[in-house]
Amino acid sequence: MKEKTDRILLSHGSGGSLMHDLIRELFVRHFDNPILGKESDSALLQAGSSNIAFTTDSFVVDPIFFPGGDIGKLAVCGTINDLVAAGARPHCLSAGFILEEGFPMQALERIVESMAEVAKLAEVFIATGDTKVVEKGKCDKIFINTSGIGFFSQRDVPLLSKETIGPGDQLIITGFLGDHGMAVMAARNQLEHAISFQSDCAPLNILLEEILNVDSGIKFMRDPTRGGLATTLCEIASGSTFGIKIFEDQIPVRPSVKGLCDIFGFDPLYVANEGKMLIVAKKGREQNILEILKKNPLGKNAAIIGEVTRENKGWVTLVTSIGGTRIVNMLSGEQLPRIC
Amino acid sequence: MKEKTDRILLSHGSGGSLMHDLIRELFVRHFDNPILGKESDSALLQAGSSNIAFTTDSFVVDPIFFPGGDIGKLAVCGTINDLVAAGARPHCLSAGFILEEGFPMQALERIVESMAEVAKLAEVFIATGDTKVVEKGKCDKIFINTSGIGFFSQRDVPLLSKETIGPGDQLIITGFLGDHGMAVMAARNQLEHAISFQSDCAPLNILLEEILNVDSGIKFMRDPTRGGLATTLCEIASGSTFGIKIFEDQIPVRPSVKGLCDIFGFDPLYVANEGKMLIVAKKGREQNILEILKKNPLGKNAAIIGEVTRENKGWVTLVTSIGGTRIVNMLSGEQLPRIC
Repeated sequence: MKEKTDRILLSHGSGGSLMHDLIRELFVRHFDNPILGKESDSALLQAGSSNIAFTTDSFVVDPIFFPGGDIGKLAVCGTINDLVAAGARPHCLSAGFILEEGFPMQALERIVESMAEVAKLAEVFIATGDTKVVEKGKCDKIFINTSGIGFFSQRDVPLLSKETIGPGDQLIITGFLGDHGMAVMAARNQLEHAISFQSDCAPLNILLEEILNVDSGIKFMRDPTRGGLATTLCEIASGSTFGIKIFEDQIPVRPSVKGLCDIFGFDPLYVANEGKMLIVAKKGREQNILEILKKNPLGKNAAIIGEVTRENKGWVTLVTSIGGTRIVNMLSGEQLPRIC
Repeated sequence: MKEKTDRILLSHGSGGSLMHDLIRELFVRHFDNPILGKESDSALLQAGSSNIAFTTDSFVVDPIFFPGGDIGKLAVCGTINDLVAAGARPHCLSAGFILEEGFPMQALERIVESMAEVAKLAEVFIATGDTKVVEKGKCDKIFINTSGIGFFSQRDVPLLSKETIGPGDQLIITGFLGDHGMAVMAARNQLEHAISFQSDCAPLNILLEEILNVDSGIKFMRDPTRGGLATTLCEIASGSTFGIKIFEDQIPVRPSVKGLCDIFGFDPLYVANEGKMLIVAKKGREQNILEILKKNPLGKNAAIIGEVTRENKGWVTLVTSIGGTRIVNMLSGEQLPRIC
């Protein structure tokens, strides 16, 4: 049964089912156009004879500094990864800052340095920006929006598209799940033993560029951020002519992350990642892709975690460690507000 | 003497001199690249054989509904106008929402409808979006970021550039100054007699498209938003090889706006506009441009307000109604926080 509400809830920003309802029933309905209607993380546009990818994300993560990153690094990586997921080569970003009056200049400088550093590493640049300041108490320290533009290489490889996915296709995740969510969770709760948690926040273009420059058999990609891998898989399967089956045993989760998830009652499948890509690969090409991924430190824990099936159309099923099968639903409600 | 501060002040978001210092000394310094370094409202990028314009703006206006518009309409118009100022034809926008928990769904729908309506009018579409929700009290109702992409027509007209400006060039403003700032000010203070103030918030692409499609003699444009016309003119003159002279008598300001400015102690030259463009035209072409502008309701009060001079290099001077001359400086400090 659908929740109906006349007020915005935290769950509307969770990446889960309530957010999807809001997008469809409000934004897509009013902004009615075929490009937005695709509900991709990036829009594909035609600029003269070139295709370009265009994406946007606002970042409100709390705390703004966490092990492995900060709101600035996250903002740059998040938008880069949305472009990468579209199969594009990230070219440049915009940066829009909303600052709270009284925010320390030193913290802002640290964040900006961090953005500059990761942008340089990923070979993108900040092309344009904007700064707004609101009165003390009217926002929480700093919010950053990054929008990004990506280009497509001069290659004859077809654009990635959900429509090309079919039974037999293999699912690859580029590394451990849940690192970002648990690092932020640990930082937020000032857990003493949290020192061992690190966000996976990273730009993925360098990892994937080599693969995308050849016809590698990659059919589709999406970065499983808010709502985690489970929600991403549900988005792919929902309304489609195929099912998705994943194997619990094959899903890489660090024991420490699994442990913290158990303590808080989280399922790592729903925890946010900020440096992982889910890849849908053509059957027979998965081993080659895996091999290339594993050569890069950002992909060394990549794994094949499941496949696209003819059965259970529109659904995601999980084969558990003990051999049972259960349906995986989209995140409902809110798990970790302000995770990105 | 330069103000130095270790905390963000409201003035850092004013559009004035403190914001310019922040941009140069923090953002441009760290994000070091020639495109950002130009400090245009839009970045010019090369996509294959096409030029594209890319811009971003976050909107935090308070109140979110005001006579003549709302935060949504403002967000769409503001970004369209930044693209228009670059001489580009706005193509599409992104929309990033930061919502406060508890924000009424009905108000969100009204804002989204308003965005959709003005986007349709301006013939742009919302290509991609993002929604974040923060806990009650962690932002003020709703903030919207719009980034935009514009294309350039298939024409041999040179790209607009500050570098082409020289002595003799004529300055045109497309209508009355200060309407937006005073409408927001009136709404904020719930002034009973405020009913007569209307924001000028409007997309300017339709007004300017006809002119930009021919080699009209337009050399440069900028929309005088935060910081007003005075700040925009100072940005143009600053560090250049020419001066700018404007004539108080020729600057169009509604008597009601002038009156409210007098009451609050504001100078209309510094008050924000959201539906006006400053045009720098080649000498001899200004009457033709003015004629075309005046045919459109959005340009019917356009006026030639000054010229580019060989004297007073780097400075803006105002010839007052009584024949005196004074220097016009960039806005310093904060006049109206959260005007856009």
